Amino acid sequence: MDQARFRKQLDFIVEVDKVKEILRKSKLFTRSRYENDAEHSWTICLMAVLLREYANDEVNLERVMKMLLIHDIVEIDAGDTFLYAKERATVRASEEAAARRIFGLLEEDQAKELYSLWIEFEERATSEAKYARVLDRLEPIFSNYVNEGYTWKEHGISLDMVIEKNGIVEEGSKEIWAFVRALLDECVEKGYLAK
Amino acid sequence: MDQARFRKQLDFIVEVDKVKEILRKSKLFTRSRYENDAEHSWTICLMAVLLREYANDEVNLERVMKMLLIHDIVEIDAGDTFLYAKERATVRASEEAAARRIFGLLEEDQAKELYSLWIEFEERATSEAKYARVLDRLEPIFSNYVNEGYTWKEHGISLDMVIEKNGIVEEGSKEIWAFVRALLDECVEKGYLAK
Repeated sequence: MDQARFRKQLDFIVEVDKVKEILRKSKLFTRSRYENDAEHSWTICLMAVLLREYANDEVNLERVMKMLLIHDIVEIDAGDTFLYAKERATVRASEEAAARRIFGLLEEDQAKELYSLWIEFEERATSEAKYARVLDRLEPIFSNYVNEGYTWKEHGISLDMVIEKNGIVEEGSKEIWAFVRALLDECVEKGYLAK
Repeated sequence: MDQARFRKQLDFIVEVDKVKEILRKSKLFTRSRYENDAEHSWTICLMAVLLREYANDEVNLERVMKMLLIHDIVEIDAGDTFLYAKERATVRASEEAAARRIFGLLEEDQAKELYSLWIEFEERATSEAKYARVLDRLEPIFSNYVNEGYTWKEHGISLDMVIEKNGIVEEGSKEIWAFVRALLDECVEKGYLAK
């Protein structure tokens, strides 16, 4: 074992523990408190395992899971930006700097691997990235369904906005997008989401 | 899409969200609060990705990650039992019942897959399970190192006890076990762990 390499790996694990203190705009399904980035990543990783059969293409699940595990680590430096916030358009530069700093704590081979996976997820050019994004979007939508639209109501989100911002789900899973569209209509009917 | 099947998958995700409220005896690396099972699972899944090169055998990382994602779900019903507690010897029956109930929320094919992975992890008969257990043990030990033995001191844990309960690390990674042994000696020297 190369001790210096191993210590870098452990130091990286200690550093990324900070995502456990980055709160999202979504709550737990029990609505008891806001969810943090580590918890969110765990949930969607598990969703990736269970829902693979609905992906448009065959996917390499190992790559999907790796992407989902690390996709929010950049928020340690860049913070969590709400999907519907204006700042969303300009956050990319600070997230990129964060990716370089944080993944750069590892030796070059692993730093490169994680950075590439992060870029792949962001640019969604592969089947794996497209499918990974489905899970990242499905969780908060389903959470709003279960919890009667609490985030949508709090931030004045309407059906058009949800459709516009989440249409990328279709790129990864036509079947899940069809489910989401019907669910959103049901949310409007039930008064969870403004028309 | 089989809607009934998909709803079972989503209902499972909602049910297992409860692990986010199961607290462990370990704290975050910043020591700000106790860690929950979902956060712990996320960390060790990421460790599995980074530390694979130290596994005694070649491992299928997808299977390792799946095991780590689900290994603590049974604690929703059975609770978290401290590694050094006497109850540890008798908790297996209630964990088994929990596994049947919770994985049984899914359709039979997926229920069977997750149940088998959970049993595989518990019985550590495969290279994947042995490696997965390394990460599950390494995290709290390293957390105690970083945080000056807080859990060990709180519960009166000594070097012999840590060695006895964590010797299984060697089955999955001789290199990591050698690192851990040296780290434990350092912990004794520094006063983090009783001799």
